[in-house]
Amino acid sequence: MERVIIDMDEVIADPMGEMINWYRGEFGREVDYSKMTSGSWVKGFPEEHQTLILERLMSPGFFRHLPVMQDSVDVLKEMNKSYEIFIVSAAVEFPNSLKDKLDWLLEYFPFFTWRQLVLCGDKRMINGDHMIDDHPRNLVHFPGKKYLYHTPHNISVTEYQRLHDWKEAAEIFL
Amino acid sequence: MERVIIDMDEVIADPMGEMINWYRGEFGREVDYSKMTSGSWVKGFPEEHQTLILERLMSPGFFRHLPVMQDSVDVLKEMNKSYEIFIVSAAVEFPNSLKDKLDWLLEYFPFFTWRQLVLCGDKRMINGDHMIDDHPRNLVHFPGKKYLYHTPHNISVTEYQRLHDWKEAAEIFL
Repeated sequence: MERVIIDMDEVIADPMGEMINWYRGEFGREVDYSKMTSGSWVKGFPEEHQTLILERLMSPGFFRHLPVMQDSVDVLKEMNKSYEIFIVSAAVEFPNSLKDKLDWLLEYFPFFTWRQLVLCGDKRMINGDHMIDDHPRNLVHFPGKKYLYHTPHNISVTEYQRLHDWKEAAEIFL
Repeated sequence: MERVIIDMDEVIADPMGEMINWYRGEFGREVDYSKMTSGSWVKGFPEEHQTLILERLMSPGFFRHLPVMQDSVDVLKEMNKSYEIFIVSAAVEFPNSLKDKLDWLLEYFPFFTWRQLVLCGDKRMINGDHMIDDHPRNLVHFPGKKYLYHTPHNISVTEYQRLHDWKEAAEIFL
């Protein structure tokens, strides 16, 4: 069974979308997507509010009720039958997110078990046949086939096969 | 730089020793080491108390103040200069331990960073040149060199090179 390594944030969970909705409601302002291309969506928020955004990211509970990326549940439910799937999140940078991410995964993707979650700081020791991730820094060391999951902060990256959404993933993997 | 994957519990942290000391104080009874050889040190406790032991293992805070394995700090401080070290713990089974384990590592091994911790359910996707672990089930899939860290629950295992203590690890790695 081939092993597929799948990232969490911006791939199956949508912290950026959640934060933008909250910010709009709280401040009535929009983000600037063109400023995210350095690799971080936080940079798309007005500079004077980036500390606030980071604090909210770090706070307990933020990752517990994030929206799910469209079609990810249906496609992964099928993929889970014919691939060895691991959800690998570089979450250790956000200590309060660790238990939240486990609880979130088991609630929204109830066909996964706790054995399929990996919470790390760096992904260079992760081995598998395929990796889907939105960060080139996570793909670069991976020994298998690499897919860049499309998101505003990576639009200028050209090195990897791009996955635009989970329907496209289904075409490739199912 | 060669990558060394190091387990946490029973290798650099001592949850079994902590539990035995607590149990002795609480119940005035000893564990039976010969019953641990199925691969779990919990089996060494009297059967009527194993649920209690598991509950204590699952409770928030248990992993936050565990004793450190003898010489592990000094040896790993040196190894961290000439190897790429990752501490990989199959901790997702114990959701309340996740943040505790990060805080514990950064307190007792302050030369490590959060980037060097991996919290997973299963270790089969971990890649590296060397792995030190007390569980044969974690070593079996590892592609590199394997070392079984000596502990009462694995004394009957003969397949792997055994590391008796961190002084022996220093002789091999330093």
